[in-house]
Amino acid sequence: SRSINLAVIPGDGIGQEVVAEGLKVLSAVLPQDVKLETKEYDFGAKRYHATGETLTDADLDALKKHDAILLGAIGDPSVPSGVLERGFLLKLRFAFDHHVNLRPSKLLPGVATPLAGEPQIDFVVVREGTEGPYTGNGGTIRKGTEHEVATEVSVNTAFGVERVVRDAFARAQARPRKKLALIHKNNVLTFAGHLWTNIFNKVAEEFPEVTTEYMHVDAATIYLVTQPERFDVIVTDNLFGDIVTDLAAAVAGGIGVAASGNINPSGEFPSMFEPVHGSAPDIAGQGKADPTATVLSVALLLRHLGYEAEAARIDEAVAADLSERTGKPARSTSEIGDALAVRVAG
Amino acid sequence: SRSINLAVIPGDGIGQEVVAEGLKVLSAVLPQDVKLETKEYDFGAKRYHATGETLTDADLDALKKHDAILLGAIGDPSVPSGVLERGFLLKLRFAFDHHVNLRPSKLLPGVATPLAGEPQIDFVVVREGTEGPYTGNGGTIRKGTEHEVATEVSVNTAFGVERVVRDAFARAQARPRKKLALIHKNNVLTFAGHLWTNIFNKVAEEFPEVTTEYMHVDAATIYLVTQPERFDVIVTDNLFGDIVTDLAAAVAGGIGVAASGNINPSGEFPSMFEPVHGSAPDIAGQGKADPTATVLSVALLLRHLGYEAEAARIDEAVAADLSERTGKPARSTSEIGDALAVRVAG
Ligand SMILES: CC(C)[C@H](C(=O)O)[C@@H](O)C(=O)O
Ligand SMILES: CC(C)[C@H](C(=O)O)[C@@H](O)C(=O)O
Repeated sequence: SRSINLAVIPGDGIGQEVVAEGLKVLSAVLPQDVKLETKEYDFGAKRYHATGETLTDADLDALKKHDAILLGAIGDPSVPSGVLERGFLLKLRFAFDHHVNLRPSKLLPGVATPLAGEPQIDFVVVREGTEGPYTGNGGTIRKGTEHEVATEVSVNTAFGVERVVRDAFARAQARPRKKLALIHKNNVLTFAGHLWTNIFNKVAEEFPEVTTEYMHVDAATIYLVTQPERFDVIVTDNLFGDIVTDLAAAVAGGIGVAASGNINPSGEFPSMFEPVHGSAPDIAGQGKADPTATVLSVALLLRHLGYEAEAARIDEAVAADLSERTGKPARSTSEIGDALAVRVAG
Repeated sequence: SRSINLAVIPGDGIGQEVVAEGLKVLSAVLPQDVKLETKEYDFGAKRYHATGETLTDADLDALKKHDAILLGAIGDPSVPSGVLERGFLLKLRFAFDHHVNLRPSKLLPGVATPLAGEPQIDFVVVREGTEGPYTGNGGTIRKGTEHEVATEVSVNTAFGVERVVRDAFARAQARPRKKLALIHKNNVLTFAGHLWTNIFNKVAEEFPEVTTEYMHVDAATIYLVTQPERFDVIVTDNLFGDIVTDLAAAVAGGIGVAASGNINPSGEFPSMFEPVHGSAPDIAGQGKADPTATVLSVALLLRHLGYEAEAARIDEAVAADLSERTGKPARSTSEIGDALAVRVAG
């Protein structure tokens, strides 16, 4: 009989609320024969304040045993900027080699976009997750003096770039439009840029059906607001991916509906799924958060584990729910979760 | 009697066409007693192909003698990516210490924006121009092999950050709303991020009237499309500035109207003014390019040299011209230039 052994990390702020709804929908969608086991972990600001720990080796060993991880949000103003990001979120992505950071953007019918007209938005960003300027390389000398120098080193390897580029080509190949755009800044960041561009062009030869284009990250932000229909699959570096996926989320209906997967394709480590939004301390605990992004992250999780039919049922339920929102009074976090749970079960 | 000794670099593609119109408007707006001398330089793809040179020491010596530089656009598909960018554009910004890269974004009445509704957009980005990931630090080992490693080093100094932050505070202080936002990614790029944040907070104490906020670059892209009215002055690093100013240009009417100044505030070296757009080889030589961004760059140039009244006349002429475009047939590059020249003279 089948089973899913899930690590659940509600985290901080609205993370708690949205993860509860994600689990509600997950339970509702799973067939009776699938045994769902969940174990909750208390990572985040509270644990940091209590113990000074963000993510220990023992934690990593425990997490490693799960089939997948569902994360709400990590981060709180009471913790200095960078401590939980580097000490938990990025540490986990690096430790579990989550090199494919998958972020779909689809503007669903009935969803408001800040863009004029009726833009067609349906693309997926494959963001590299373990290299680039995110490695934590760099340092500071003469800190706090007028002679301070701080550096950040973007590290890019042929190994790391090729595997994520290859993943993106395979995804593009599997989609009807078969288009792939590389986003970088190879006219300025020439060392990393040439590595990315050369590998992209080399792998392209193996995928003759995929139409490719290159664009600079600055130009890409223009296209994302003026011609978002242009994009099908995007592959890009860790930092550019961070930036373009927030913009992509904004134009495709907001971060309330933006899901993401931190994927280790080989399965050596569990993959982690999380909404793109943060912990939003300003609205935490009030039942105001939209759990849709978390529910869509559960769909990505199910798809990753091979439950394609269940993932599709969630996507459909979300699309139906969103299409019926206009003109209705706002619902609470759990009301939206209840409605989605009913839909996926039904 | 007063005089302006201007270096003119038309450059590649549409650069030639738009610069001609910029000069037309400049001549028309200047009072009779101001002597305008211009010297044209042939930098760009043609010179590179003919001589292999992008910008020599002798060129820099010659340019140094001018009061200011007007640039069209540099770049052509026939030149490998990076050669002219690093060898000319960035070399000049670094050699002439253009550390204040000024990019105003104002959505003028009658101008189309990709955003829905009627967004109020009127802010200016102060982008650092001589540090960050643009320094060319970094390198490649095992090039072209499966073991290639490429690095890019972002270099940030207290000296470099403080002077640009100070410039931005002074600009914010001089504007009615007196707001300044720092954009960085200090939760991930903690070395550079803390340097920027600490200096920003320190200088803020000297400007108690300026309201400040910090935001991560990814969140900033969201606000730029959902709440652009939020921004008054933005200060940010070289790479983030590159990205957010293209997005800002896109939402504020497109790069056809986006001007920029590469400023050396001390006056030790001439400052350079250029449209944000590139050389657009696809439409070059057809009279299709909109010279407005170049004309607005001429206004920035005049303001920098102390010709405030003349700069304001250009801004007004452009606003009037743009407000009357809707529904009219498209005009050629020189027709737009003629119309603006008539307006500023009248
Ligand atoms: C919180 C931060 C470390 C993270 C990132 O920069 O990757 C977030 O912005 C994201 O996109 O998941
Ligand atoms: C052409 C390139 C070097 C340049 C930059 O990245 O600064 C351009 O994009 C700009 O914004 O002026």
